[in-house]
Amino acid sequence: MSLELFERHRALLDLALAATVTRSGFTARAEESTDSEAVLEAEGREAFANYCGSYFYLDQPGVGERIGEERSPYGSSLEIQYPKTNLGTVLPAAARAREAWRRFTLRERAGICLEILQQLHLRSHEIGLATMHTTGAPQALAMRQGGILAQDRALEALAMAYQELRGVPSSDDAAGSRTQGELGLTRRWRQEGLGIGLVIGCSTQPNLRAYPGIFANLMTGNAVVVKPHPQAVLPLAITVGVARHVVREAGGDPNLVTLVVDEAQSPIAQSIALRPEVRIVDYAGNGDFAAWLIENARHARCHVFGGAVNAVIVDGTANIAETIASIVRSACEYAGRMCTSPRVILVPRDGVSTPNGIVDRDRFAELLALEFGRTLSDDLAAARLLGAMRLDEYGTLVQGASALGEVLVESRVIDHPEFPGAQVYSPAVVRVKPEERSIWMREWFGPISFLAECESTADAISMAAAAARSQGALNAMLFTLDAGVRVAAEEALGAVGVALCVNFGRQQSVNDELPFCDYHGPGINPAGNATVCHSAFVAGRFRVVGDRFFR
Amino acid sequence: MSLELFERHRALLDLALAATVTRSGFTARAEESTDSEAVLEAEGREAFANYCGSYFYLDQPGVGERIGEERSPYGSSLEIQYPKTNLGTVLPAAARAREAWRRFTLRERAGICLEILQQLHLRSHEIGLATMHTTGAPQALAMRQGGILAQDRALEALAMAYQELRGVPSSDDAAGSRTQGELGLTRRWRQEGLGIGLVIGCSTQPNLRAYPGIFANLMTGNAVVVKPHPQAVLPLAITVGVARHVVREAGGDPNLVTLVVDEAQSPIAQSIALRPEVRIVDYAGNGDFAAWLIENARHARCHVFGGAVNAVIVDGTANIAETIASIVRSACEYAGRMCTSPRVILVPRDGVSTPNGIVDRDRFAELLALEFGRTLSDDLAAARLLGAMRLDEYGTLVQGASALGEVLVESRVIDHPEFPGAQVYSPAVVRVKPEERSIWMREWFGPISFLAECESTADAISMAAAAARSQGALNAMLFTLDAGVRVAAEEALGAVGVALCVNFGRQQSVNDELPFCDYHGPGINPAGNATVCHSAFVAGRFRVVGDRFFR
Repeated sequence: MSLELFERHRALLDLALAATVTRSGFTARAEESTDSEAVLEAEGREAFANYCGSYFYLDQPGVGERIGEERSPYGSSLEIQYPKTNLGTVLPAAARAREAWRRFTLRERAGICLEILQQLHLRSHEIGLATMHTTGAPQALAMRQGGILAQDRALEALAMAYQELRGVPSSDDAAGSRTQGELGLTRRWRQEGLGIGLVIGCSTQPNLRAYPGIFANLMTGNAVVVKPHPQAVLPLAITVGVARHVVREAGGDPNLVTLVVDEAQSPIAQSIALRPEVRIVDYAGNGDFAAWLIENARHARCHVFGGAVNAVIVDGTANIAETIASIVRSACEYAGRMCTSPRVILVPRDGVSTPNGIVDRDRFAELLALEFGRTLSDDLAAARLLGAMRLDEYGTLVQGASALGEVLVESRVIDHPEFPGAQVYSPAVVRVKPEERSIWMREWFGPISFLAECESTADAISMAAAAARSQGALNAMLFTLDAGVRVAAEEALGAVGVALCVNFGRQQSVNDELPFCDYHGPGINPAGNATVCHSAFVAGRFRVVGDRFFR
Repeated sequence: MSLELFERHRALLDLALAATVTRSGFTARAEESTDSEAVLEAEGREAFANYCGSYFYLDQPGVGERIGEERSPYGSSLEIQYPKTNLGTVLPAAARAREAWRRFTLRERAGICLEILQQLHLRSHEIGLATMHTTGAPQALAMRQGGILAQDRALEALAMAYQELRGVPSSDDAAGSRTQGELGLTRRWRQEGLGIGLVIGCSTQPNLRAYPGIFANLMTGNAVVVKPHPQAVLPLAITVGVARHVVREAGGDPNLVTLVVDEAQSPIAQSIALRPEVRIVDYAGNGDFAAWLIENARHARCHVFGGAVNAVIVDGTANIAETIASIVRSACEYAGRMCTSPRVILVPRDGVSTPNGIVDRDRFAELLALEFGRTLSDDLAAARLLGAMRLDEYGTLVQGASALGEVLVESRVIDHPEFPGAQVYSPAVVRVKPEERSIWMREWFGPISFLAECESTADAISMAAAAARSQGALNAMLFTLDAGVRVAAEEALGAVGVALCVNFGRQQSVNDELPFCDYHGPGINPAGNATVCHSAFVAGRFRVVGDRFFR
């Protein structure tokens, strides 16, 4: 094994390590185009086209029949066939690969992981298209979330793990040692991964949510089994293929990273998670399944993102137009299909203070409806903001909205101007009574938002905190001119693990995610316990055994 | 709040922080006597005498009747009465105290915790006597484990937590902040403890095993409820009293650290552990209870030490006398009542290689029995090595030994020459067939060891690994002259989290514990997941919430 890959990528690793200390936010690669971009983009288009209608080649053991049921929300049936994998073969192969992986030093592992990231980066375009055509995300978002953003989150996990592991003495050798005292007692430490890490992909942000677990596991000496969502296999299949290639080239056993594909009709995530060899589970998606994992996969460490009822609290604002634009933008991006999307807008019964006087609750509702209308009036602009959706998955969510309360904004079905056969569903906004918690105090994952009036701002804060406590929440948007309100919100919401986003304007979305900076999902409420930049994310994935010996 | 305490103890903290990096082992205070030692010792004796037959004063809320059932294994009935605490009062008080504690900065918390340690250090003598007369540990061991060693382990947890927390930007203010970019977005991070940490004390090493959890919890912003073993309350009661005093003097709410005492007939550890306010549980002791906690207190992080079947594998040795002396010393210390005590000695059927030829299995058994006899022949020396025991707790363990196999060494009941009324029970050694795993492959916590012959050294290694995997093990002593055997043992036992102790001599005990150095209980097997010097021990006890705001 050699340190060539480590040396090649060392400068980037050093920058990433520095960023884990400063927490200033860091991105490894500029997004602007370079000369080679056009070539890479053309290659990406061709590669993506070649996947469609074909058999996705993976040289894994235990491959039997072929399966695949992805359909692009943008209209095309992708018709990609994947190997259906026999767990009885793959898990022992992964365990054997981990044995080989144990002999790689920390630097060797880091070099290999950095090289995987570099190879993924070069294939960002095909991965972006794969993300777009499986998840339905708007193209620009898919490119970013499937590509650079996922890669940066991966780099963050890699750097956090490197930092933790080099804290173990002499850990850069597979087993460091040190001789102490006159008697010649030698101490030697070994890092041990826990076993196999299962990473379960989600349907809306497959790479972004899976990469931190994959790279944290590899760095800490674990094998990885990737089980994508049946509707969003391709982005992770490409990822696994790249990882296997790099590991093999570096002299490792490619079964260190394997792909297990299932079908919606016969899901296998539960049965893999319960296998005793699986010691770590990373998952993002449905809150009930996240809770099931924590409840049942008790032999494993579970890092999950579940449901989130993110609130918007509108107490006051210096500029009501900016405030409403920020709310609408945050709610419309990807049609509310992000774990950070706002779910409920809480307004005090007495209205919203502004420098020009009170905006009363009805006027607020009217302004909100107008802004949704304006933002989504142009079909192409709306489609590029919302992305495409499958009717079967999201239609029912919205169609039932009118039964829930006063429909303030109707959901529209838009034929996508660029993709014949693709539908776009715009968000509905439903006005409910705040006491109807059973309606709004759960996650409606998709294009629907609720507007609820509260007794007071204090009431709104306590409702947002209650929703976080019981259902989970990652963030809360707060608009206020009152320093006391801000302190009260910081206290009440901080204590339940909700990140406040205060006085955002038109330019800012609550969905913006900044690697190496935001403590996304700190684990205080059920929405998630997978903060990549908290050392708890990596520290529990390995153990250290210390030996003492005399000659 | 002031930084005076932090500045006062800063030099020590810096040394401790350095030691967490070098892992060279570190002790804060020299053990040798100083001029003031004699005074402190006299004060300690007086303080301890004053506790006996008295009511232990603690100014906690919710105090009702008085309870207490400690009896010294050294003969005296201590007759100390403790406040019986009403959980319905104590837990809300602890939660309120935590709210106040949240406003202390990291440095302020560190200063207060370091001052608590300093105050505990000044009372090491009374704490040592309290430890001796509740646990039955030999006096020198009780002084060390209840005093300096426990304090050093506490300092280690404190330094690890400090290190983790200062990794959060600007975390030395209660909420650090930083303004980014042209738009004036300010990011601010808050550290949040999880809630209340329950620390459950054990009967044999109450302070040593409880301090890391107590100090890790305090540093990370949690309140602590200490529930001692009903037979070993005093060492932790003194500790809680000191902590409350220092917290109050520093302007905090003393209910940050509370004591809850129960009786053997009506234990309350389970019901406290299941309270939703309790988010962290630290426990050392019975393996079944450790497993129960992990299984049932799922809303809480559990750091536990459970049972351990530590093996001794004798393949070969350059000096059979040294080898046997090391085994016997390790087995006799504190009469096998440490989690590190060896439990089973595995010898290959073909005997033990030495430079002078093979020592066959019968000769090995004979030498072992002789060494036990020699070590324990003098009553006073034996008593000082073994410590005192209560008949009801340990007698039955040994009395049934003869039914289990060939009794190689009989247990002796020794009247303690220094303490009339105190009994000392010397270890029995029972020779069993290796296939009788149901006998030896479980933890016999006390003065009994097993000798089992194996097919081969490879067989012995695999049996030791199997015992670790199923029952837990912290260490294995290995004696060998064969580098291949050592590598095989490192592989097989390292993978199941067992720390190897290779070729120890008469001077070395497997029970030696070195703060800031040994990764005790790494969490790979059931014996424990509470390695103080692994950042996972502290990192999960707090969360970080990041807010973003505009003016």
